[in-house]
Amino acid sequence: MGHVTATTSRTRLAPDERRTQLLDIGVRLLATRSLDELSIDVLAEEAGISRGLLYHYFGTKQGFYEAVVQHAADDLYARTAPPAEGEPLERLLGSLTGYVDYVVSNQAGYRSLVKAASGSNDALRAIYETTFAALADRFFTVDTGTLELPDTPAVRLVIHAWQAMVEDLVLTWCDTPAGLSRDDLLQVITASLPAIIDTLP
Amino acid sequence: MGHVTATTSRTRLAPDERRTQLLDIGVRLLATRSLDELSIDVLAEEAGISRGLLYHYFGTKQGFYEAVVQHAADDLYARTAPPAEGEPLERLLGSLTGYVDYVVSNQAGYRSLVKAASGSNDALRAIYETTFAALADRFFTVDTGTLELPDTPAVRLVIHAWQAMVEDLVLTWCDTPAGLSRDDLLQVITASLPAIIDTLP
Repeated sequence: MGHVTATTSRTRLAPDERRTQLLDIGVRLLATRSLDELSIDVLAEEAGISRGLLYHYFGTKQGFYEAVVQHAADDLYARTAPPAEGEPLERLLGSLTGYVDYVVSNQAGYRSLVKAASGSNDALRAIYETTFAALADRFFTVDTGTLELPDTPAVRLVIHAWQAMVEDLVLTWCDTPAGLSRDDLLQVITASLPAIIDTLP
Repeated sequence: MGHVTATTSRTRLAPDERRTQLLDIGVRLLATRSLDELSIDVLAEEAGISRGLLYHYFGTKQGFYEAVVQHAADDLYARTAPPAEGEPLERLLGSLTGYVDYVVSNQAGYRSLVKAASGSNDALRAIYETTFAALADRFFTVDTGTLELPDTPAVRLVIHAWQAMVEDLVLTWCDTPAGLSRDDLLQVITASLPAIIDTLP
């Protein structure tokens, strides 16, 4: 796949287009690599440009990581957009299908982001937390809301914990499906949210 | 509190007793400190012994960390023992009460263990995972079982994810109670397990 982009990279691109192209390549590489394995050298080779030009666009290695992870997070957010029509649980199922398929296709990078976010990398943790807060916000916005949940601190606390559960469930299932099909998994993560909300006093 | 132990440390103890005493001090210090802040110097001062003697007992700094974290994990396991009598959900509630109170009393060390376990410290991750696997096993052992759950890979997958949810919920609640009392929190984490299990096909 890298050689396809090597061809297009020889064409003259506006700076914004070039930067976006580099981020797209970074996100694609991150699908099968951890952040640690995503070196500036690998990206420069894939993009067919010099390391110096990469530093020109992203400043530092950390700046490049942050830009790629933010680009991947935007991608995750877009891919989990709930369908515009349908019953609340159907719309949640549609959104979660996007999440499961994203994690399955981008396991290496996703796992390394989770690790970085729970470690000492404050910038990556901020991107991670902002993304999941934005996903939670969807439950409370009229145009994209999937379930009619009251917007209270307790409901938000439970949604946060449910997100942690979903992430653990999907990542563990990727390693050990435990006899559950993709549809079974989607049924559990979709139905569990209203079930947990119902346990609130 | 440290001065109390400094007094007892001057008495002559058998090596095993001394080692256990040092671990107890380490676990106590970990309640209000992260692993990074739990230095050999701090422990030596609290125990009133030389750094050399500490290295004699634990070999390396990493060996000391592992021994303290294992000691803390054993403590967590003991404190979450379900009551011998009662209805299944009452027994689960009793066990989870031990967990919540443990996390509340040992937040700094617990958070740093979660961080270390999700990072690159393989030994600490192994202790963390072994402990939670042992807690999950309680659901399937006759003498201590709290709920009558079928021992299938799918149920174990869900318990693992529920543990991740409970951890996130309790740690977030420590920072932001969101209007939930300790009893409310216990109600949510206790009732959510059977609710999530029920979503399995």
